Amino acid sequence: MDVRAAVAFEAGKPLSIETVQLEGPKAGEVLIEVKATGLCHTDKFTLSGADPEGLFPAILGHEGAGVVVEVGPGVTSLRPGDHVIPLYTAECRECDYCLSRKTNLCQKVRATQGKGLMPDGTSRFSIGGKPVLHYMGCSTFANYTVLPEISLAKIRPDAPFDKVCYIGCGVTTGIGAVIFTAKVEPGANVVVFGLGGIGLNVIQGAKLAGADMIVGVDLNPGREALARKFGMTHFVNPKEVQGDLVGHLVELTKGGADYSFECVGNTQLMRQALECCHKGWGVSVIIGVAGAGQEISTRPFQLVTGRVWMGSAFGGARGRTDVPRIVDWYMEKKINIDDLITHTMPLERINDGFELMARGESIRSVVIY
Amino acid sequence: MDVRAAVAFEAGKPLSIETVQLEGPKAGEVLIEVKATGLCHTDKFTLSGADPEGLFPAILGHEGAGVVVEVGPGVTSLRPGDHVIPLYTAECRECDYCLSRKTNLCQKVRATQGKGLMPDGTSRFSIGGKPVLHYMGCSTFANYTVLPEISLAKIRPDAPFDKVCYIGCGVTTGIGAVIFTAKVEPGANVVVFGLGGIGLNVIQGAKLAGADMIVGVDLNPGREALARKFGMTHFVNPKEVQGDLVGHLVELTKGGADYSFECVGNTQLMRQALECCHKGWGVSVIIGVAGAGQEISTRPFQLVTGRVWMGSAFGGARGRTDVPRIVDWYMEKKINIDDLITHTMPLERINDGFELMARGESIRSVVIY
Repeated sequence: MDVRAAVAFEAGKPLSIETVQLEGPKAGEVLIEVKATGLCHTDKFTLSGADPEGLFPAILGHEGAGVVVEVGPGVTSLRPGDHVIPLYTAECRECDYCLSRKTNLCQKVRATQGKGLMPDGTSRFSIGGKPVLHYMGCSTFANYTVLPEISLAKIRPDAPFDKVCYIGCGVTTGIGAVIFTAKVEPGANVVVFGLGGIGLNVIQGAKLAGADMIVGVDLNPGREALARKFGMTHFVNPKEVQGDLVGHLVELTKGGADYSFECVGNTQLMRQALECCHKGWGVSVIIGVAGAGQEISTRPFQLVTGRVWMGSAFGGARGRTDVPRIVDWYMEKKINIDDLITHTMPLERINDGFELMARGESIRSVVIY
Repeated sequence: MDVRAAVAFEAGKPLSIETVQLEGPKAGEVLIEVKATGLCHTDKFTLSGADPEGLFPAILGHEGAGVVVEVGPGVTSLRPGDHVIPLYTAECRECDYCLSRKTNLCQKVRATQGKGLMPDGTSRFSIGGKPVLHYMGCSTFANYTVLPEISLAKIRPDAPFDKVCYIGCGVTTGIGAVIFTAKVEPGANVVVFGLGGIGLNVIQGAKLAGADMIVGVDLNPGREALARKFGMTHFVNPKEVQGDLVGHLVELTKGGADYSFECVGNTQLMRQALECCHKGWGVSVIIGVAGAGQEISTRPFQLVTGRVWMGSAFGGARGRTDVPRIVDWYMEKKINIDDLITHTMPLERINDGFELMARGESIRSVVIY
């Protein structure tokens, strides 16, 4: 079938709106109509060429929501008409990782997904007979796409696509890091580095978990008002701190953060996030993605005296299990997504959305098909 | 009273056997007769002058066992005749740290202890009227010493001093890191870097916890036989590995260690210990103490993909609560201490013990008073 897609032909160039041919679903696969998709920094990172694993030509996009159109042979958990959110982290419930009960990093389709292919080693997208690659197993910058059954979370039918698409990445990454990875408990003091789309979701996750003090750290004072609306109790602008930022945060939190989160991808901030943690028990979670080859460092004494350094991918969430619950939380107004979606646009204006992102003017832009 | 002690007058010099004056216990303090003491690398580290926080003159030693002789005013939990193990990590059960339920790093006497003083800011030891400092709050290289009540674990009276003194540091540090810090579970795969006194106790801790594969890594092939006796299932000598040690360990453990422990104090080993952990859930625990100013590094991707980097001090054990339990484990033959105590000597020959340590000939030397 012919579908409309924003194609990334090569690194560093804008996306190109094209008519693309899409094959139907093979065994274990599902064809969905994408109704809305968010624009994430990771899409931009890959498009820029900075991602060493980026492959072209490809159809980017990994933060969507849509409706099942057709299922391939052997698909049992979904049927046409089901509302779904695509998952760049699958949940097969049968690999060693899924069965470990210790991680959400299902490996079932990992190898082929990393090559931009479906599990059988081929692509469903093509232009003029030449294959176009999938991206993060999702390719939500097309109005129709094909995914493995295990890469789709079935959600309630009354949830609005143009809002819950954000749960496909940013919302879950931020809230999940608090709830599933760090397991923040009521009364905790939390420090969040970076008040972009991820950081704001960390903040509302910390609020949901009952944190006492929620400190936001950002160089942009324009982020303070929205962060306070999401639950931030204290704002720290490093530019306005006299002396050492870590010392300031330790003093502000009366001994250090119980939990800190790095939501930027800056290795120096990752070190500060660890070192502002409380001696004896502070846990620091890395969410941001650092540039290729960059390293984090600290004195081992920081760990020997009780701090813990860890990371979080997709918020530690198991997609098929946890994403529908987070959709419920949105529908029950336990979490706020509406205020984070600052811009919407049709597919034809998707490059405008990336420009808003580059200029720091948007929290989240959503393409509505 | 006059006591016999091995005094460290200055860095880099041998200990000197002296008659030292010891004041009796003040309020909240306890006078004990030390019956035996282990010689630990930390004593040697301080004596060498490499410890930036080392102070002189001092009476070193922090791995002892003895009997209560006299209690000061207000002491309620101990009485003369009680058998005790001195604790360099106190357990007051009332500071924020003790009450956090998240750490064993009681801070009650931390500040004065770090200065070589009792909680009232003075020393009980002197020679010719000039103060001699305490060390790690213990000073077990004297046949009598004074400690705060909260720095003594009361143990069963039938436990032999010349064996359970080792529980005052090395045994608890190794076994505790497995049980209290990492919380290794039955069936886990464990990799241990360094098969000295700490590493061997990590191994028997892993065996006690029901680990499946217990891999020991050491450059000294002479350590293999004893390590196997303690539960090691696989020995890896990095000198004999072709290619990358981390890759070899990941392959040997079929995907990486569930838990790894660094028991040397080498920052490069700390990195290898983290990176040989299993993607998704591997936990690496730093036990060894690195040299001043040294740093650990890795790519943040190691953490974002699910590895956890942490440390352990005194095995995460709460001294007054957990040390008596570990003494019980020894008496019930759940753990082996006898085979680790390779040498004993009178106080007068304590410098011989440090020479054995320097030459790598002993696992543990114990001074018996």
